[in-house]
Amino acid sequence: MDSMTFVLFGATGDLAKRKIYPALFNLYLNQKLPKSFSVIGVGRGESSDDEFQSRVIDSLHTFSRHLLNDKSKKEEFVKAFRYCQLDVTDTAGYKKLLELVQQNEKEKNMAENRMFYLSVTPEFFDVIAMNIKDSGLGSTNGWKRLIIEKPFGHDLKSAQELNEKLSKAFEEDEIYRIDHYLGKPMVQNLEALTFANPVLQSLWNNRFIANVQITANEIVGVEERAGYYDKAGAIRDMVQNHMLQLLMMTAMHVPKRISENEIRNEKRKVMESLRPLQRDTVGVHVVRGQYEHGEISGEPVVAYGEEPGVEASSQNDTFVAARLWIDNSFWDGVPFYIRTGKRMAEKATKIVIEFKNPLKDLYNSEMEQVEPNLLTININPNEGVSLQLNSKNPINGEMEPITVDFSASKQDVPEAYELLLFDALVGDSTFFTHWNEVELSWNWVEPILEAFKENRVPLHSYSSGSMGPEAAHQLLIEDGYKWW
Amino acid sequence: MDSMTFVLFGATGDLAKRKIYPALFNLYLNQKLPKSFSVIGVGRGESSDDEFQSRVIDSLHTFSRHLLNDKSKKEEFVKAFRYCQLDVTDTAGYKKLLELVQQNEKEKNMAENRMFYLSVTPEFFDVIAMNIKDSGLGSTNGWKRLIIEKPFGHDLKSAQELNEKLSKAFEEDEIYRIDHYLGKPMVQNLEALTFANPVLQSLWNNRFIANVQITANEIVGVEERAGYYDKAGAIRDMVQNHMLQLLMMTAMHVPKRISENEIRNEKRKVMESLRPLQRDTVGVHVVRGQYEHGEISGEPVVAYGEEPGVEASSQNDTFVAARLWIDNSFWDGVPFYIRTGKRMAEKATKIVIEFKNPLKDLYNSEMEQVEPNLLTININPNEGVSLQLNSKNPINGEMEPITVDFSASKQDVPEAYELLLFDALVGDSTFFTHWNEVELSWNWVEPILEAFKENRVPLHSYSSGSMGPEAAHQLLIEDGYKWW
Repeated sequence: MDSMTFVLFGATGDLAKRKIYPALFNLYLNQKLPKSFSVIGVGRGESSDDEFQSRVIDSLHTFSRHLLNDKSKKEEFVKAFRYCQLDVTDTAGYKKLLELVQQNEKEKNMAENRMFYLSVTPEFFDVIAMNIKDSGLGSTNGWKRLIIEKPFGHDLKSAQELNEKLSKAFEEDEIYRIDHYLGKPMVQNLEALTFANPVLQSLWNNRFIANVQITANEIVGVEERAGYYDKAGAIRDMVQNHMLQLLMMTAMHVPKRISENEIRNEKRKVMESLRPLQRDTVGVHVVRGQYEHGEISGEPVVAYGEEPGVEASSQNDTFVAARLWIDNSFWDGVPFYIRTGKRMAEKATKIVIEFKNPLKDLYNSEMEQVEPNLLTININPNEGVSLQLNSKNPINGEMEPITVDFSASKQDVPEAYELLLFDALVGDSTFFTHWNEVELSWNWVEPILEAFKENRVPLHSYSSGSMGPEAAHQLLIEDGYKWW
Repeated sequence: MDSMTFVLFGATGDLAKRKIYPALFNLYLNQKLPKSFSVIGVGRGESSDDEFQSRVIDSLHTFSRHLLNDKSKKEEFVKAFRYCQLDVTDTAGYKKLLELVQQNEKEKNMAENRMFYLSVTPEFFDVIAMNIKDSGLGSTNGWKRLIIEKPFGHDLKSAQELNEKLSKAFEEDEIYRIDHYLGKPMVQNLEALTFANPVLQSLWNNRFIANVQITANEIVGVEERAGYYDKAGAIRDMVQNHMLQLLMMTAMHVPKRISENEIRNEKRKVMESLRPLQRDTVGVHVVRGQYEHGEISGEPVVAYGEEPGVEASSQNDTFVAARLWIDNSFWDGVPFYIRTGKRMAEKATKIVIEFKNPLKDLYNSEMEQVEPNLLTININPNEGVSLQLNSKNPINGEMEPITVDFSASKQDVPEAYELLLFDALVGDSTFFTHWNEVELSWNWVEPILEAFKENRVPLHSYSSGSMGPEAAHQLLIEDGYKWW
């Protein structure tokens, strides 16, 4: 691996503490970092290198999945960490940052490979990128890469504007847009599961599949994110990025070769085939909801409108369900259902493939009900694959569903950020979001944003701790299905 | 359920003690016997009803899967048992038996439904059947049925002769030929698994399946059965009946309706499509073996030729492996491999479906070896279904096989004899062997019998505790496969 400097903007922030430092440390322990590397933490506040290093050690104590009692490994690791105080809007400050980076590269005899990680609020994305360029930080003899967190824009236009600005400082193939759902092991496994298994690949089309259901439900409410969330809603926070990414990963075809370009190409084709919605008929295919008060684990919880930082009259969506159609020969006639909500009865990210049952009349009778075959890919919190089959109960001789399943061992499974950071370090962008995908996603979501804004789609309330508004169930019942 | 009299020939024999009484008792406990029933045990030795009843109670203590401490249920159950001493070749004795049966029917006000179970050596099958007819035992106002144990003949001719004799006393639809493999829950489940699951049914043909491997291996040697076994060999003891039945159950097509006639019809079609062997080329497709001394669980065991009751020079087969072809459009080009042996390394009856992998070049490289998808149906000693898929190891990112599986709970699963006796009592002969199947099986096996007899096929020796002779592995290697 190339030696490199990891410049982290937002070094004192929450994501750095919870995810990025632990991920880097775990990569370090697994010898997946270059032999020679530096981490330059950039933050607004004042801090010495020592203080910064202890802060990182503290975060490892709390958040690393390797709970090493041995302190020496951590101390060895943080020796590579330096701190740089910087107001990201202050152009002069970047010169100081550049000097620190260069001095460090010289001292450690490192190549000028620079990874810039923007773990900051989106309003600074373009500012930082431009300053990286203007200050000379981006003019290296080695590679430069930009890792950028979501959200990437808040609608199509703002995303295009942001991309245009970023593209002045970084080439598309230097930009690694994080969608941490793409870092989850079972999502990364989707491609292997569907492409490397002829028994699944053979069935992966509208001849055999009745419908596909993609769920990403949370138990938590808006938490401390009201400021952002009340403007974004589930549609921007979850649907435009994570849900559509899961859809692309599920629906893409086998490429000619397994390579980032070929896979990307297949994902793009899915988005291009996605049937556009019309603003005035969005409500036929899309359900929005907002949580009412209710009970979670026996404890009362407040309605969305009563959450701190949320206006009582907020019309924001905390739940979205939708029916999507992919207009190509493989998926013609197969509805893809997505749903995502906060304050739901259970935390679950999963993909369920419901298969057609052309032979159901052979067995279905008043006495016996044959269930459809289901393939479930559990992504979170459990990881695994299960297949529901019909089987004969040996005791009463009746047909009953059985589940053949595989649960991934929890042990030693890397977290999303580890997998993604490693990929970025080796320059593999397969599991990052390409601009094409961002643009096509915003484009598809746009009529929904408008319809929501113009109140063309009813805002259903649902009890906290429920499975969402009745309308979301109705969406499937209309087609003769139900959520699994 | 119809009231009935169960007349058991061989009432003091081993099978009665180990299997039939426990099965009847378990059916009784599960209320799967008619309210009104009698069991008339027929045996050569002298015994009072009381002595017979205690003998049955003893067998329940030892062999029933319901280990009831409560003695009263057993005592209540055996009240329905009577004993009749009879030399089965003594025509006069059957009159006495008829009187007992009739007297009993009258006393209990039972309909004249009579189930005759022949748990005796095959040489008496026809004698007993004829006597049942001649004595008037078979002339009832109700139904009469004959349950008959294996072996049904020792070659095609003897089977045809036996069937002709039986058919003078019983109609084909009154004859229930037991193949206890067809009573095993997972074998009975095969039909449901393959027909009621579109994901499996869709793949159940030569477009997706590379080969099918049917294994029935035992750890035990010839045990106390040398007298019979040394004349029969694995080919008659296992292949002609059990292995070909498993083959039929695996390869049959979906019938128009699920009924005994339709299923039977599909099974017959498989046998009719089985490519015949030619006596002089049997050795190309069939491997025979005989166990040498070796080790089982660390203990030395003797060679077959040293077993009590076996001649040192015996050329008998204790192992058979074969490659079979089913010449119809569904299975054209798909080899079916069968193997069965005594003194093997493990006890396992299972069916493995190996799927083709048209996409293997997408992943297979020097670094990654993609395994074929395998569907394994475990029949004995474990019961379950498992599917081997390829998955990405989240730690090293490499492809590796995972197994999604389902193991049937051991609890309360009925034994083969329970399921089969119940079916016979309600007149469902789906899981019994029809004469067509017996005849077609013997017909297919005939060239092998001749080739073995004429020593046209080498007799390979294999170490006890091994996986059989090398030639059995070679049989698959020739085709580019291996035993799973």
